[in-house]
Amino acid sequence: MSLTHVKAFGTEAKDKDLQEMTIMRREVQPKDVEIDILYCGVCHSDLHTTRNDWGGTVYPAVPGHEIIGKITKVGSEITKFKVGDLAGVGCLVDSCRECESCKKDLEQYCLNGSTGTYNSQDRYMANQRTYGGYSQTVVVDQDFVLSIPENLDLAATAPLLCAGITTYSPLRHWNVKEGSKVAVIGLGGLGHMAVKLAKGMGAEVTLFSRSPDKIQDALNLGADSVVISTYENEMNAVKGKFDLIIDTVPYDHDVNPYITTLGISGTLVLVGYLGKMEDMLNTVPMILGRKSVAGSVIGGIKETQEMLDFCGEKGITSEIEIIKMQDINEAYGRMLKSDVKYRFVIDMKSLA
Amino acid sequence: MSLTHVKAFGTEAKDKDLQEMTIMRREVQPKDVEIDILYCGVCHSDLHTTRNDWGGTVYPAVPGHEIIGKITKVGSEITKFKVGDLAGVGCLVDSCRECESCKKDLEQYCLNGSTGTYNSQDRYMANQRTYGGYSQTVVVDQDFVLSIPENLDLAATAPLLCAGITTYSPLRHWNVKEGSKVAVIGLGGLGHMAVKLAKGMGAEVTLFSRSPDKIQDALNLGADSVVISTYENEMNAVKGKFDLIIDTVPYDHDVNPYITTLGISGTLVLVGYLGKMEDMLNTVPMILGRKSVAGSVIGGIKETQEMLDFCGEKGITSEIEIIKMQDINEAYGRMLKSDVKYRFVIDMKSLA
Repeated sequence: MSLTHVKAFGTEAKDKDLQEMTIMRREVQPKDVEIDILYCGVCHSDLHTTRNDWGGTVYPAVPGHEIIGKITKVGSEITKFKVGDLAGVGCLVDSCRECESCKKDLEQYCLNGSTGTYNSQDRYMANQRTYGGYSQTVVVDQDFVLSIPENLDLAATAPLLCAGITTYSPLRHWNVKEGSKVAVIGLGGLGHMAVKLAKGMGAEVTLFSRSPDKIQDALNLGADSVVISTYENEMNAVKGKFDLIIDTVPYDHDVNPYITTLGISGTLVLVGYLGKMEDMLNTVPMILGRKSVAGSVIGGIKETQEMLDFCGEKGITSEIEIIKMQDINEAYGRMLKSDVKYRFVIDMKSLA
Repeated sequence: MSLTHVKAFGTEAKDKDLQEMTIMRREVQPKDVEIDILYCGVCHSDLHTTRNDWGGTVYPAVPGHEIIGKITKVGSEITKFKVGDLAGVGCLVDSCRECESCKKDLEQYCLNGSTGTYNSQDRYMANQRTYGGYSQTVVVDQDFVLSIPENLDLAATAPLLCAGITTYSPLRHWNVKEGSKVAVIGLGGLGHMAVKLAKGMGAEVTLFSRSPDKIQDALNLGADSVVISTYENEMNAVKGKFDLIIDTVPYDHDVNPYITTLGISGTLVLVGYLGKMEDMLNTVPMILGRKSVAGSVIGGIKETQEMLDFCGEKGITSEIEIIKMQDINEAYGRMLKSDVKYRFVIDMKSLA
């Protein structure tokens, strides 16, 4: 199999800035499409991977898994797409397709390990790594390529492919519908999408935040109310209220105060923090109220398409700030200070 | 309202043994039935309450909430029961009946506080406490009285009213059905019922235990296999296996090793330990496998009747050791040493 040289932005080591580099993509296989990347969202996972925060990063690493582009080549067996179509790629580019999870359209929970859009072993070629969307083109099996609604702003659609599906999937799995009472903890990239999507599903949406200066922003995004989590009287006022809480906080934090705001049979879903929770979980309110603490990660391909179609229908996109590829290191610095409303998206023309 | 004197067994203080005493029951109201108590199961909650382990015990305290008896009087508006009927009373004798939980037949989660069979304020009479089944008779509103299948051994049916429903309710809530993979942690009063009930629902049942000497007992009760939780190879062999784990362990313990044995979207339900969990919960397997940690307490009246009917149909009862009322203090001592297979039941004739 021959390889194609592609211009990209990545890093050579965990303590190095990102810089321009050349990577190799596999040539288009019968079931592959090649996508000319127009926009790529910037996710916290990109930053964690380049800095090896979770371990396991293989260098050079090229991040980016919120990819929007146009199809420029299709393989001989491609039926779902044609050259010129808009296309999206999220966090996954492959999976085993045979396990119980894959058979249920839950490729994100592939029991044999799904293939991440970056920093994974390519399933087609030995010794070939996957490289993400901070690049000019990407080659992906059509089964992992999403169709993009024509009516949405393309740049603002990119973050739906990770931040969008990460919050959409638990909202659907835990049956949010018209009138559901949903709370969202944290108003960042994930949180602002959770607010918009829950609202789009007809829920009554409350934002939990520590910052009173988030109140107006949250209301503008569609939240019905904001609870400042450090104000005891505000926390008491929502005791027992919520059917579902989407917890987007990206660091260790005490979930016990939020559990008391769940109603009977309610669930708090962690989507932002991977690690150990130092505060002791109190089982009393959980047992006496049949409450759950759960986790969830992105979504399967079928559900991601459903989410994109839902966003097309409802006119939902992310709030973004467009940057050039060359500004990525500065953007990472700002992300670490939560100085972004609410997602950076790279205009990939800047790489050409 | 006049009161009736009834012989009972209870305690006057947290450090006192139980002894014979006389309590007052309200006279039968239009919607009440009076039950002559034949058998009363002995639950760990009885012991915790008499010793004020959870705080809030008002003395004198008369425990007992696994009550089986015969109806001896019915109020003027009683339609569901007649004198001579078998009847059961579990952990609840009343609730507000108006809140969202009560309207959904979830009286155990009554938002205004359900009335416990013992150590609660009676809803009918100011300054009247509720006293449990360690007594000759009990007067209960018909809406909180259960019908008992005629085909079951009466003494062995008593523990269904707490141990049975405590495990039946989460098995149903989390949709256990033919072929579900269910694990039960701990083989005590709750655990042995969980094994029998899950098996009755058609599940494949595994017992987690620390004691190899529980293996044969568990298999005899219907478990398909036993995993000794201190044997790493046995734990590894069931990684990712279970749809639902019923955790009956009554003290603080680390749930993380069990979470790894849950399959995708699986749930571990705590039913035995009320308190703080000292071991840090690791969110990684929860997020990457959409797993939940939940709690559950007993069940509503409608579901308790459903459970009793199910047990009648399947011929399921508890494994018991019958004791006399006068042996209760010794029985508590043995319970603290887990020296019971699997539930003490008091033959209330011994109190006469």
